[in-house]
Amino acid sequence: MTSVTVYGAPFSPAVSRVLACLYEKDVDFKLAPVDMAKGQHKSPDFLKLQPFGQVPAFQDELATVFESRAICKYICNKYPEKGNQNLIGGRDGGLLARTSVDQWLEAEGQSFNPPSSALVFQLAFAPMFGFKQDPAAIEQNEAKLANVLDVYDRRLGESKFLAGDDFTLADLVHLPNGHILVSKKEDLFLSRKNVGRWWEEISARPSWKKVVEMQNVPQS
Amino acid sequence: MTSVTVYGAPFSPAVSRVLACLYEKDVDFKLAPVDMAKGQHKSPDFLKLQPFGQVPAFQDELATVFESRAICKYICNKYPEKGNQNLIGGRDGGLLARTSVDQWLEAEGQSFNPPSSALVFQLAFAPMFGFKQDPAAIEQNEAKLANVLDVYDRRLGESKFLAGDDFTLADLVHLPNGHILVSKKEDLFLSRKNVGRWWEEISARPSWKKVVEMQNVPQS
Repeated sequence: MTSVTVYGAPFSPAVSRVLACLYEKDVDFKLAPVDMAKGQHKSPDFLKLQPFGQVPAFQDELATVFESRAICKYICNKYPEKGNQNLIGGRDGGLLARTSVDQWLEAEGQSFNPPSSALVFQLAFAPMFGFKQDPAAIEQNEAKLANVLDVYDRRLGESKFLAGDDFTLADLVHLPNGHILVSKKEDLFLSRKNVGRWWEEISARPSWKKVVEMQNVPQS
Repeated sequence: MTSVTVYGAPFSPAVSRVLACLYEKDVDFKLAPVDMAKGQHKSPDFLKLQPFGQVPAFQDELATVFESRAICKYICNKYPEKGNQNLIGGRDGGLLARTSVDQWLEAEGQSFNPPSSALVFQLAFAPMFGFKQDPAAIEQNEAKLANVLDVYDRRLGESKFLAGDDFTLADLVHLPNGHILVSKKEDLFLSRKNVGRWWEEISARPSWKKVVEMQNVPQS
């Protein structure tokens, strides 16, 4: 029996980010559904796990952690010897390798995530949950994201992955929003030569394919 | 002569975040102005330092780093023996202490920063640079920030600082936007008992007072 519990459902981008990391690190886990339709994410018990009332939350025998990127780092730091040992800059990675991962993780969090999350909401979740789409928001965020992907395309012309020669957390964190956006606006990613090459490579990883399989199984 | 160079001006919130960290760590640095009015931040030379064309950029004899929070982590990791040794969870801090800092750093980056930056733009920079204020954006972001500060107020009722008993990067990163917002909408912070107590304590640190002094000196 594993003691690692992830609260949330795989269709949530932030939850699927943590699941991809767990598969990369070969760490067993169980999923605990959170019934957001019934407001379970705002219940006092859930707020003890995640004070903002959002998914995912994470718990093991040692700690309760929230924020998907912080959870991923915790998993990498807790299990240095398991699975992929390069995710935070190599097991024996020096300061520069770790800093490169930190820097591109922050670029994702601050530059890629805001417009890509807004587009994911507009293009995927708004139609699914019966909200009206906002064409101005789509146009504005697509332009912002295009600028970010132009920077990525130059970077990925110099190195195989964002932080350097290895696939790291800095790449992994892009998978959830990227997966949804490639299904809706393929050209944003695939029309850019280096971004397209990078996307094909990171989205073909067995870890991410397992997450996509979980997303495609109807949740009970 | 120091080899540490920070590109940008102290009035920029992201630049001042890095300066506060350098003062906490007692690391000498020099400031290199970037003439954004003349588009210097989009010049090929500057884009080699900061591919998104934003300030700050950071350079020393070892590395070029961008993204203010990643720069702060680099400084803490590079100079473990200098100045404040608790900023990333204690010099000998274990996994839990480091994870708590990571978690609240992410909370700042993902939850506090978006609405607080939008408010800083609307309330401080828009009037300064002659942009029209958007009352709907002010109202919407103030409501979002109030919800975040309610979560902080509960957290700060349990622990002295966000990540635990010590002042860490997780607190420090709030200083730039907090400073501007307290000057414009004091009640947002000071009407909340624990947030108010925390704000008075972190904003009185000598490191931050030095940054505010630099902001008050007209730049040549």
